[in-house]
Amino acid sequence: SKSYFITLLPGDGIGPEVISVAKNALQLIASLEGIKFKFNEMPMGGAALDLTGVPLPEETLLSAEQSDAVLLGAIGGYKWDKNEKHLKPETGLLQLREGLKVFANLRPATVLPQLVDASTLKKEVAEGVDLMVVRELTGGIYFGKPRGFSTNENGEELGFNTEVYAAHEIDRIARVAFETARKRHGKLCSVDKANVLEASMLWRKRVSMIASEYPDVELSHMYVDNAAMQLVRNPKQFDTIVTNNIFGDILSDEASMITGSIGMLPSASLGESGPGLFEPIHGSAPDIAGQDKANPLATVLSAAMLLKYGLGEEKAAQRIEAAVLDTLNRGFRTGDIHSAGLNLVGCKEMGEQVLKSI
Amino acid sequence: SKSYFITLLPGDGIGPEVISVAKNALQLIASLEGIKFKFNEMPMGGAALDLTGVPLPEETLLSAEQSDAVLLGAIGGYKWDKNEKHLKPETGLLQLREGLKVFANLRPATVLPQLVDASTLKKEVAEGVDLMVVRELTGGIYFGKPRGFSTNENGEELGFNTEVYAAHEIDRIARVAFETARKRHGKLCSVDKANVLEASMLWRKRVSMIASEYPDVELSHMYVDNAAMQLVRNPKQFDTIVTNNIFGDILSDEASMITGSIGMLPSASLGESGPGLFEPIHGSAPDIAGQDKANPLATVLSAAMLLKYGLGEEKAAQRIEAAVLDTLNRGFRTGDIHSAGLNLVGCKEMGEQVLKSI
Ligand SMILES: CC(C)[C@H](C(=O)O)[C@@H](O)C(=O)O
Ligand SMILES: CC(C)[C@H](C(=O)O)[C@@H](O)C(=O)O
Repeated sequence: SKSYFITLLPGDGIGPEVISVAKNALQLIASLEGIKFKFNEMPMGGAALDLTGVPLPEETLLSAEQSDAVLLGAIGGYKWDKNEKHLKPETGLLQLREGLKVFANLRPATVLPQLVDASTLKKEVAEGVDLMVVRELTGGIYFGKPRGFSTNENGEELGFNTEVYAAHEIDRIARVAFETARKRHGKLCSVDKANVLEASMLWRKRVSMIASEYPDVELSHMYVDNAAMQLVRNPKQFDTIVTNNIFGDILSDEASMITGSIGMLPSASLGESGPGLFEPIHGSAPDIAGQDKANPLATVLSAAMLLKYGLGEEKAAQRIEAAVLDTLNRGFRTGDIHSAGLNLVGCKEMGEQVLKSI
Repeated sequence: SKSYFITLLPGDGIGPEVISVAKNALQLIASLEGIKFKFNEMPMGGAALDLTGVPLPEETLLSAEQSDAVLLGAIGGYKWDKNEKHLKPETGLLQLREGLKVFANLRPATVLPQLVDASTLKKEVAEGVDLMVVRELTGGIYFGKPRGFSTNENGEELGFNTEVYAAHEIDRIARVAFETARKRHGKLCSVDKANVLEASMLWRKRVSMIASEYPDVELSHMYVDNAAMQLVRNPKQFDTIVTNNIFGDILSDEASMITGSIGMLPSASLGESGPGLFEPIHGSAPDIAGQDKANPLATVLSAAMLLKYGLGEEKAAQRIEAAVLDTLNRGFRTGDIHSAGLNLVGCKEMGEQVLKSI
């Protein structure tokens, strides 16, 4: 039987709780599908800072690199918010993305019929939303150099960063996006600020060139300010969106909130080859950490993405997705998605119910 | 009687139609309030490109600089979309902002009780939204150098821009924002990406320093991705938001769409001294240009901001604002904000009704 090595990075806040649920789901699916998992749990983020003094210890990165896939809970918390840059939990996450070379971040934003009321958008606007943001993850202003602080001729402090893209960085994320759109509804919207930024002009030019390889996909371009509006006005107009690192950070979070159920949303970060990184899009929620209140479904669905995109285990992935829907249909809800008449459960109980559904 | 010199920049698309309505409103208010206006209409954007070959002719900038205030319609259109950067209508707008040194862009997003149904957000989420985005307008990645295109060691094309802020640029926009918050509900939220970007770390540091000058204003900080979510989740939590040029571009458009009536929203761009620039936040809408369908109220309300922030004519400003509300209360609506049972009118007729209300 196939055997996979998975690095688990529980991280901070609610991370350990949701990872534990997802691990159980993976273990059960393995026994049913004749798969074997070897798990290695490693410290990362604030937990790693407290333990080792750095947010991404070498051993953690090494384990991740040697894995077939990596599942991350969440990182960060008030405790480390004022740390210097190289000692921030977030810096560990950026180092992990860079180390694993996972340049393509896939973030679905789907409004499930069961949860349409959770959205702050009117029912007729929210229902049926099903879009995918493909965010460039290892380039742009997050990693561009020069960056830092300096002093100008007046002795004044300056802070600066560089938004930079090379042609091949745009080409490869564009290809992932076109492939993604092809498997979805064949529509790709590339988002940039090409009316102002040179980096965006190159972005638009390269995406338009790559389009000729995908004549079956319908490509459009949109400015980022307009995209931020259109997501609110009519999110259903979007199928697949591709954009740079910083615009993707903003728009994917906006899109996820439009579903109203960010406790449900997974993500996958993929490279050319090598292990993918899978994580819920929500944060570490330090205010409810350790209280058995977290919604573990985003992490369970991230495990499903891990099976599908990371290991090619489509069938096992589908069984997990189906189990999540079944659990919702049976009326179980954590606090974040609860509404009157439904069964309010904690993180652990939700995990048990998913296992039952599997 | 006081006399003011106003440069009108109708620009492109629906620009001339909405400027004509706003001019009439200003003229009427002048006669009633004992003010005198001298108007000078100058070409700008695509109109200027067609006429003179550049998007901001020297004479236009000169007239703007010599004015007491500048009122702009809208610029841009498909026709010029593929122009090279220095021949884009947008470049003319950036040159105008830079030329007038209007570093502070005030963008209110208000949900009027009369128009709450226009929002795609649920009524209970949208009603009562009343926030102000204070966007830095003449710095950051829009103007930062170096910028452009180059080739890397592999002979590959690169596109790059620089996000850079100097301490004084942050200090002065922060002061405008604190002053604005003080006149509103005393709450200021500064939005940045200080967990990743050095430019944002300096931003946060300086805004926090300036806060000590405004002990009566409650300051909070938020990451831009979270802000994009919170605007959808609960926009009422915000009073005044201050942020950099590019984040402000995105978030102010998102906030305006949350109101559902971007045809209603004005903006003011102000400098240390010298004339302010006032414009509706909507675009040039080339698809409905010349069809008498545009909503002129955003430009009329921009004229009110011109009176208030540009000339200190508070009373005249209030009369225009009151007239706009009265026109809505009397049931007149352009297509963009129309709903069953109300009186659908065109741009001109809406203008007539505003005059009547004044
Ligand atoms: C934690 C932070 C560095 C990160 C990012 O900005 O990429 C997060 O917001 C995300 O989107 O995964
Ligand atoms: C037209 C464009 C250059 C401009 C900007 O990005 O500033 C517009 O989107 C705005 O917000 O006024």
